[in-house]
Amino acid sequence: MRKKNSNTFELIILGTSSATPSKNRHPSAHLLNIQEQLFLIDCGEASQVRLFLNKIHWNQLSHIFISHLHGDHIFGLPGLLSSMGLNGRQTKLQIVGPEGLQEYVETSLRLSYCQIEFELEFIVINHTQSTNLYNDGELSITSFPLDHRVPCVGYCFKLAMQHQKLNKEKLQNYNLNFSDIKKLQIGENVLLNSGQTLHSKDILYTLPIRKSFAYCSDTRYNESILPYIEDVDLLYHETTYAKDLKQKAFDMGHATTIEAAQMAKLAKVRQLVIGHYSSRYHELQPLLEECQEVFEHTILGVENLRIRI
Amino acid sequence: MRKKNSNTFELIILGTSSATPSKNRHPSAHLLNIQEQLFLIDCGEASQVRLFLNKIHWNQLSHIFISHLHGDHIFGLPGLLSSMGLNGRQTKLQIVGPEGLQEYVETSLRLSYCQIEFELEFIVINHTQSTNLYNDGELSITSFPLDHRVPCVGYCFKLAMQHQKLNKEKLQNYNLNFSDIKKLQIGENVLLNSGQTLHSKDILYTLPIRKSFAYCSDTRYNESILPYIEDVDLLYHETTYAKDLKQKAFDMGHATTIEAAQMAKLAKVRQLVIGHYSSRYHELQPLLEECQEVFEHTILGVENLRIRI
Repeated sequence: MRKKNSNTFELIILGTSSATPSKNRHPSAHLLNIQEQLFLIDCGEASQVRLFLNKIHWNQLSHIFISHLHGDHIFGLPGLLSSMGLNGRQTKLQIVGPEGLQEYVETSLRLSYCQIEFELEFIVINHTQSTNLYNDGELSITSFPLDHRVPCVGYCFKLAMQHQKLNKEKLQNYNLNFSDIKKLQIGENVLLNSGQTLHSKDILYTLPIRKSFAYCSDTRYNESILPYIEDVDLLYHETTYAKDLKQKAFDMGHATTIEAAQMAKLAKVRQLVIGHYSSRYHELQPLLEECQEVFEHTILGVENLRIRI
Repeated sequence: MRKKNSNTFELIILGTSSATPSKNRHPSAHLLNIQEQLFLIDCGEASQVRLFLNKIHWNQLSHIFISHLHGDHIFGLPGLLSSMGLNGRQTKLQIVGPEGLQEYVETSLRLSYCQIEFELEFIVINHTQSTNLYNDGELSITSFPLDHRVPCVGYCFKLAMQHQKLNKEKLQNYNLNFSDIKKLQIGENVLLNSGQTLHSKDILYTLPIRKSFAYCSDTRYNESILPYIEDVDLLYHETTYAKDLKQKAFDMGHATTIEAAQMAKLAKVRQLVIGHYSSRYHELQPLLEECQEVFEHTILGVENLRIRI
């Protein structure tokens, strides 16, 4: 499903509230678009609505990654799957997450008389270790343990590929039509009017593309996570609480602003985006500012924000 | 929890979509306020959000009535119950509906590690017959069978009581202070300056109050339902389809505009409110007009509409 000539690597924030929804914030859900393949990461209640308000058609999703089974991360699943079924989805959907997810989904669908025609494949994650979930030599997806009150995992998505690009400066030396340029682009040689052969390898150059995103929700501050998120372009790290609630954060299995920013700094990531805010915070700017005291390149996650990497 | 001196009998429409949510419509949910006791009727996904946007605190609900187990009527339950728990609810909540509801709710709460401190009491409805669920001589609640693809019931709420009111015309003959008026109001007699006794029974008169609401969703047109909804002040009847889709409505276990209106007419109800619209209808006015051809006193149900009876 990935379009390998696409340059897209984009995160769309669909929900930033922790525990309960509030007036303008929705429970956790994030869409990751890697070369037009769409991954949903966590699926809080009414994620299906957030998706279509962002003009993402449900049936385009190929995988759903769930961090853990707290309700604010999974209660949108039965409704989303049910709507996919009603909209005639036929293609397989993979649902990845800790144990219990399959029972939750299958019980909900069975008792609500939901009959879906597409295949649901469940991939159960061992939450105590890092697991390589997918690797085709270009895209790799791994899960890794987080430190929450219940079994919980983070995910890291890395794209590393070589794009063949046309050297436009060199092209100007030849009088080529559109069809010739197309040929060169796909690696074919072109016979010039002069009788000379123009080799595509002389016109193409290699552009290495490396893009990465790591997702950490929900978790305490824990430096054992660092190896799994090092050097990523974008890190999502939960910031349920402001810095003054450090003890509460620890007790609840969450992180503060300062802690999320410290993780970003130690992991040498390029950008940090925060979310999963406690409903006690009506204004989020102070949370952003606390993070930026420690890690300048912090972005405030808000609903419908799109971050291109 | 009912305030017996209250005159309130109000329906708030929280969701009018069938099957899947759409841009401006949410799945089925209705709040019924009878003398400040709050009943939720059906609980589609994100009903908790619709409740707080209507300034109804979740913890004020005493009962949840579920018509049937299709997802668009129940997928909001786990989130709502979970939020009630997080907000410290202590009082018992009764959940009423067809078989399977308890397994759905308990499985969802168990697998999402949701620990609630309040008692949940499930009342299983026999969907093949009418059942008297509650009757204290003033308020009665009954369930009755609907005609859908899966076990489905309607509910009828009837309030019949005698309010003691002050005859203000008679009061004007006496020079009474506020405290004296209060006494008369609660049935005590008052000694006048003249030495004469003013008996409260001579100043009070009895005002009979009768208010009723019946809820029919989802159902085919079926006249066997009529005895259960006769003469109610307000009938909610689903109108998933316009009149031209009569056969589709029958096949799917739903009703058309004309059919809902015909039920209202035959049952001699005072007002009909419609809802549960198919997502194919962007404009709802034509549905209303089709109903009004048959039953003039039809109200178009839309999100956040309040109907006082």
